[in-house]
Amino acid sequence: MNPTDDWISQPPHSLDAHAEAAARARQDQLTKPPGALGQLETLAIRLAALQGRAQPQVEKIHIAVFAADHGVMAEGVSAFPQAVTAEMIRNFARGGAAISVLARTLGARLEVIDLGTAGGLADVPDVRHLALGPGTANLAQAAAMTAEQLQAALAAGRASAERAAAAGAELYIGGEMGIGNTTAAATLACGLLNESPTRLAGPGSGLDAPGVNRKIEVMQRALDFHYPNLCQPLETLRRVGGFEIAALAGAFLRCAQLGLPVLVDGFIVTSAALAAERINPGTAEWFLYGHASAEPGHQRLLQALGAQPLLQLGLRLGEGSGAAAAVPLLRLACALHNDMATFAEAGVSEKL
Amino acid sequence: MNPTDDWISQPPHSLDAHAEAAARARQDQLTKPPGALGQLETLAIRLAALQGRAQPQVEKIHIAVFAADHGVMAEGVSAFPQAVTAEMIRNFARGGAAISVLARTLGARLEVIDLGTAGGLADVPDVRHLALGPGTANLAQAAAMTAEQLQAALAAGRASAERAAAAGAELYIGGEMGIGNTTAAATLACGLLNESPTRLAGPGSGLDAPGVNRKIEVMQRALDFHYPNLCQPLETLRRVGGFEIAALAGAFLRCAQLGLPVLVDGFIVTSAALAAERINPGTAEWFLYGHASAEPGHQRLLQALGAQPLLQLGLRLGEGSGAAAAVPLLRLACALHNDMATFAEAGVSEKL
Repeated sequence: MNPTDDWISQPPHSLDAHAEAAARARQDQLTKPPGALGQLETLAIRLAALQGRAQPQVEKIHIAVFAADHGVMAEGVSAFPQAVTAEMIRNFARGGAAISVLARTLGARLEVIDLGTAGGLADVPDVRHLALGPGTANLAQAAAMTAEQLQAALAAGRASAERAAAAGAELYIGGEMGIGNTTAAATLACGLLNESPTRLAGPGSGLDAPGVNRKIEVMQRALDFHYPNLCQPLETLRRVGGFEIAALAGAFLRCAQLGLPVLVDGFIVTSAALAAERINPGTAEWFLYGHASAEPGHQRLLQALGAQPLLQLGLRLGEGSGAAAAVPLLRLACALHNDMATFAEAGVSEKL
Repeated sequence: MNPTDDWISQPPHSLDAHAEAAARARQDQLTKPPGALGQLETLAIRLAALQGRAQPQVEKIHIAVFAADHGVMAEGVSAFPQAVTAEMIRNFARGGAAISVLARTLGARLEVIDLGTAGGLADVPDVRHLALGPGTANLAQAAAMTAEQLQAALAAGRASAERAAAAGAELYIGGEMGIGNTTAAATLACGLLNESPTRLAGPGSGLDAPGVNRKIEVMQRALDFHYPNLCQPLETLRRVGGFEIAALAGAFLRCAQLGLPVLVDGFIVTSAALAAERINPGTAEWFLYGHASAEPGHQRLLQALGAQPLLQLGLRLGEGSGAAAAVPLLRLACALHNDMATFAEAGVSEKL
């Protein structure tokens, strides 16, 4: 490992067992049958352990959307033209995209990080342009990133996590935009899980069945090309990932080190989350999971992480939207945990 | 049918097909792949049809919690003592219960309606005491309600729906509290669906396996006793329902007539929703479903109503809490629908 990526292997922050025990004890005293609030109870207890306080809260939220283009688009793997990546970056900044609306509605801070698009963007207000390149190389016939690009992408994520922590964020959400990135995410997942492309390829933003078959063929070609160099997760990420996927992994690695809980979004973000966990085991302790995506490969990724996602609404948009949609459940879990009366306070009889 | 219950058979309000078509057309123009917001899209379109406006919203919410005691408690069918019904009514009023916290957090109006408890309550501030009796009769050996009690309970629900509509509510949530009421709800569901008690009995607030077996035996005794008088849904409700279950049915019947959408809660509330639909077919057009409860019989009720619940969080508390927990999803669905940019507005390319 280079000196520049030493930070990656720093250990994740520890969870707070005292806060967790106190939160669990509190749940058992609240005026409800034990366990009757289901996942809202376990969520409050988990947030207590993550935040190191018996009464957690999730008011200050940092959402970072990482965007980039993908060389694998030369293989015809998306239902949308490549120009949409840059167009959507403008849409994020102007407030018209789904994640823009969700961030406003939730009162969350939204930052947009452009890691590099095919056309090149330099002037969108409120967007951080990092210009790592005009998208990645075509992963079906080359490494997607150079070592320098990988480090720059990881560092972009690290910097985002550090900005969030410095601003006092209580929860971090990473989103993504990048036409073609389900192909990169699925190939990355195949590399990390030693799975077949048929198990992890899906329609993405809307491929038809022949399109999905073409995608599977492209992924298989990529896996064959990079074999046997997919044994180290960081190298797998460099070869078949994407700028935004590497940035997400960097953000998650740093969130775990800083003790900032992450609410994981859908298929692409979860591939980055799995990469982060494989790069630095223990990172996943800091993950909560917003939703199960309609993208079929997401189930396999969630299973690999032992995830219990909060929502199953058939979402498949990306941008961090599925995680953002789950934020109110975290807030309600905290409100119930912190504000309900105990049996003693309310003078209510306990179970027979 | 008596003159006093003529209102029950008035037809439900019609859905607005124009608003629905306009909302559907709008969804197809928003900057996202078609269908990528899954149930959040269909929810916005459905709300448009229900509210008669292409851009729906769910800001003003009326939550009514109906509470009552159950004579079937003489059979030992609950994990909690009967006194808890009255104790929880006080807890609702003081703001310490789960539904109190949820209503505050959501900015919803909460009303508590005490239809009759074993001890008798008359003086709890902010609670409507209707005093239909000291709970129902024991449905295992008598009709739970007299005809007059049934009409009074239905009318209590009707009045609640009318208060909600008069206050400009955009969504109605009915909740319940009544120690022993999963036995009534499960028996009612058996009567309406011609199902076996083994299919619909569950642990409720926390029965162990022998307790569930006793509950099944009590339910079977009730079904045998009332046979063959369980062919008319209103009579079935009178014989094996409960005050709060009948009030919920009355509220839902009136909501549908007034054109006020209902967000249905868990097992007990869904049994009332099914009764309302069977009493006046078409009522269920006005139902949205908040969650799938951990109470096993809920799946069968949801299936009978063709329901697609929004949340699956293992909740089993009642009080309307599972419906309240889903409210933020309705609000986010409306915000996305109303505030996202269209492809034309944002200058984003459409699908290839």
